Amino acid sequence: MTAAPHYRRVAVIGLGLIGGSFARALRKHGLAGEIVGGDGSRAVCDKAVEIGFVDRATTDLAAAVAGADLVLVAVPIGAYGAVGEAIAPALEPGATVSDVGSVKQAVVRDLGPLIPEGVHFVPGHPIAGTEHSGPEAGFAELFEGRWHILTPPPGTDEAAVERLAALWRACGSNVEVMDPGHHDKVLAITSHLPHLIAYTIVGTATDLAEDTKSEVIKFSASGFRDFTRIAASDPTMWRDVFLNNREAVLEIIQRFTEDLTALQRAIRWGEGDKLFDLFTRTRAIRRSIIEAKQA
Amino acid sequence: MTAAPHYRRVAVIGLGLIGGSFARALRKHGLAGEIVGGDGSRAVCDKAVEIGFVDRATTDLAAAVAGADLVLVAVPIGAYGAVGEAIAPALEPGATVSDVGSVKQAVVRDLGPLIPEGVHFVPGHPIAGTEHSGPEAGFAELFEGRWHILTPPPGTDEAAVERLAALWRACGSNVEVMDPGHHDKVLAITSHLPHLIAYTIVGTATDLAEDTKSEVIKFSASGFRDFTRIAASDPTMWRDVFLNNREAVLEIIQRFTEDLTALQRAIRWGEGDKLFDLFTRTRAIRRSIIEAKQA
Repeated sequence: MTAAPHYRRVAVIGLGLIGGSFARALRKHGLAGEIVGGDGSRAVCDKAVEIGFVDRATTDLAAAVAGADLVLVAVPIGAYGAVGEAIAPALEPGATVSDVGSVKQAVVRDLGPLIPEGVHFVPGHPIAGTEHSGPEAGFAELFEGRWHILTPPPGTDEAAVERLAALWRACGSNVEVMDPGHHDKVLAITSHLPHLIAYTIVGTATDLAEDTKSEVIKFSASGFRDFTRIAASDPTMWRDVFLNNREAVLEIIQRFTEDLTALQRAIRWGEGDKLFDLFTRTRAIRRSIIEAKQA
Repeated sequence: MTAAPHYRRVAVIGLGLIGGSFARALRKHGLAGEIVGGDGSRAVCDKAVEIGFVDRATTDLAAAVAGADLVLVAVPIGAYGAVGEAIAPALEPGATVSDVGSVKQAVVRDLGPLIPEGVHFVPGHPIAGTEHSGPEAGFAELFEGRWHILTPPPGTDEAAVERLAALWRACGSNVEVMDPGHHDKVLAITSHLPHLIAYTIVGTATDLAEDTKSEVIKFSASGFRDFTRIAASDPTMWRDVFLNNREAVLEIIQRFTEDLTALQRAIRWGEGDKLFDLFTRTRAIRRSIIEAKQA
């Protein structure tokens, strides 16, 4: 028997794009009795109350989580240590603490030890987002049809995991449970490397001479544009992702660089067959994504 | 006084995405008396006639261009030499020959010498396209709101250039005249490098172990997906682009690789400030693109 996906009081720590969208989704589907916001910025707290996706909000994170049976941490990963120390003493026994960080091993490492006995710790990662950030950027439908990965450490209470999974399913997500290390490797290729490359190429373009740069903007529809959208993502969040998934990211950069060097060499020596073969193989992956309904 | 954007008979050589979209746009806006298709594939000719975006179509390219006052070459750049030799003897004096190739110096070099005296040669490049190809893939609105770059060699008849520019404007494009070498440099960064990188990263992913690959597809919404769309573009066209814009592409790959290596080093040594600074700068470029209405 699955527990009903409903929590008495949900505390959302960090009221940006993801935290704000989660709160809006809870509201939309009636999944929480009360939604309390916590954020280091007074202005963000005020904005969240004004928009109305939380019932109340405070910069006192301990006060925000007091009496909550679900706490969702939705801050950049670099802030997890400080947030964990602030909320740990106020966590209610039997409550569940989860998060939405794009890296999971570092979360288990940094936040895990701070969670008191008797509180369930179920890290998570919604495969959803936009290039916008802040409390105004969220919307209740952000998670619909998207994957949500949960990475509970060994020994986590199964009922707590299933209850949280049911909540995310009620927000429209498909839930998958995964080992945190495996998560970090898969996301290094599907998310972290693409973002790093997009940031790099847009950076390369910003270093061009002024006249060329204005033409890069003018003629961006030819491919470059798609990279700029990704490279407009939140700088703090992404800095923390790269610093906290260092090994998997460095490994995949290495593979990518080898492959790019091989193509560079094929272009230099006019080896058209090598280019054609790769360009044909990559089309098949696109078809798989369309078939998997993730396009 | 600008000549009316109307041609008596337009021959479109190559009936894929771009050629087919151009023919559809001519039809939609009533810009040609007759539209004749030429394509090396009998099946493609039949399909184009069946869809109805050409009045007739033939695999005999000389026959296709006979009597045409405008010839648009819309085949992969590697085929320009053969197409030029096939059509040159049949070109009518006073006609204009243009093209839609993504590289312009190589077109001036390969096609230019084949164009007879008395025929105007005005190479062009529409900054528009999709990842789909073939005669079914086109649509009349493809060029609306997009740039069209013309790169006439020095001494080209100005009235012929302006007449062609007016035709593209009538199809919805904004027209810009540019030196072919400058075009190739700008497009190397806005288009050719992004495509090469997208092909590379999707290739890197296809080389992963089968179990990881299926998860890459499953969780592609986290950034990877945007690259797969670009990497699904026509393999023959893109092979020819890289082989024919070799110098500019190799130069920009070199810059990109230097920048990626610097970021790789910053990740390895935990230099968060360097990452944050770049990620903040790149957001500004996105804003410029949105302001330039190319987003």
